[in-house]
Amino acid sequence: MRISELSRRSAVPTATIKYYLREGLLPPGRATAATQAEYDESHLRRLRLVRALIGVRGLSVNATREVLGAVAEHAGERHQVLGLVLGARPVDEAAEAAGMAAPEHGAAEVDALIGELGWEVSEYAPARAVLGETLETLRSLGAGLDRAALRGYAELAERTAVLDLDQLDPEADPLEQAERALLRTVLMEPALLALRRLAQENESARREG
Amino acid sequence: MRISELSRRSAVPTATIKYYLREGLLPPGRATAATQAEYDESHLRRLRLVRALIGVRGLSVNATREVLGAVAEHAGERHQVLGLVLGARPVDEAAEAAGMAAPEHGAAEVDALIGELGWEVSEYAPARAVLGETLETLRSLGAGLDRAALRGYAELAERTAVLDLDQLDPEADPLEQAERALLRTVLMEPALLALRRLAQENESARREG
Repeated sequence: MRISELSRRSAVPTATIKYYLREGLLPPGRATAATQAEYDESHLRRLRLVRALIGVRGLSVNATREVLGAVAEHAGERHQVLGLVLGARPVDEAAEAAGMAAPEHGAAEVDALIGELGWEVSEYAPARAVLGETLETLRSLGAGLDRAALRGYAELAERTAVLDLDQLDPEADPLEQAERALLRTVLMEPALLALRRLAQENESARREG
Repeated sequence: MRISELSRRSAVPTATIKYYLREGLLPPGRATAATQAEYDESHLRRLRLVRALIGVRGLSVNATREVLGAVAEHAGERHQVLGLVLGARPVDEAAEAAGMAAPEHGAAEVDALIGELGWEVSEYAPARAVLGETLETLRSLGAGLDRAALRGYAELAERTAVLDLDQLDPEADPLEQAERALLRTVLMEPALLALRRLAQENESARREG
């Protein structure tokens, strides 16, 4: 397909596609004339992933290039690709480890929880720090969670993750799968929080009788 | 207690407390001299709720005053108070209804879901619109949820809400309960999302074997 069709099918403006080509986020098309190139389905899939990384995950162009490079290195390993795209695994674990202080607040509690549940997660997963800091903030405000409650929330998160992964098509191309996982993970967040608010309102009404 | 102790116990600067007094967010203390007043535990509870409404829920001073007024009107009705503090119920339903167009995107799907589950939630709950718009966005990107998956997420939200409400002390003063519910609901959000990310990583690793 021509760049105009790639633009139409991806809903990404031609100028933006050209910018991504110059920045190396998209491989060049097959040249068919001095100023024309032909693109295929792999360009479309890659372009959709680029849009999701930039527009949904909020990465910079440089960070997107790094993630795509790491994804290409691990092309056959579906779990690695998902982890890279979702940000669960740092692109360069060593660099990340050097630059990122181990989370200080609540880290012991998070380690204990993950150990107790037997979860296999990267030591530098940014979600660890978010969890630890949030628990610490709640505690400092006198609204801390006890261990049983935290475990209860973690078990519900396990079931949510099963639902999340059940919806990925195991037959799909890994890049396509990664893009959908990213959209579903990040874009579903407000919906999950909204469902919780609605469910709280209902549960509160139920208890009041 | 003097204003200095109120400040110490609430960790709110004296100047801020004086501002809240001028703005009518806190009732005046009992005057003990021309320039001195005595405050009690009810001031402390109210001050904590004001901080949570402004700092955690992000309300303006005027909106906080309106919520507090509505809370005072419904002082005995625990469910109403929680709904007002959490923003599930508009302060003035009529005004809200006039100003707020019914959510257009995905509203039918949200109504159907809520009906199917038998949830009792306000027609103008802002979470309805958030949910509808998110589902619509996912669909427009080709990553829509089917009915069974949406229902699965809603059922997990029900269990989360049960956990949330189990942690409120039913004996506590309603304002104190409302403040804790607000802190727990809003501040727990990043922790719940982080748990989901960690659980996804673990589930992905488990499936990869």
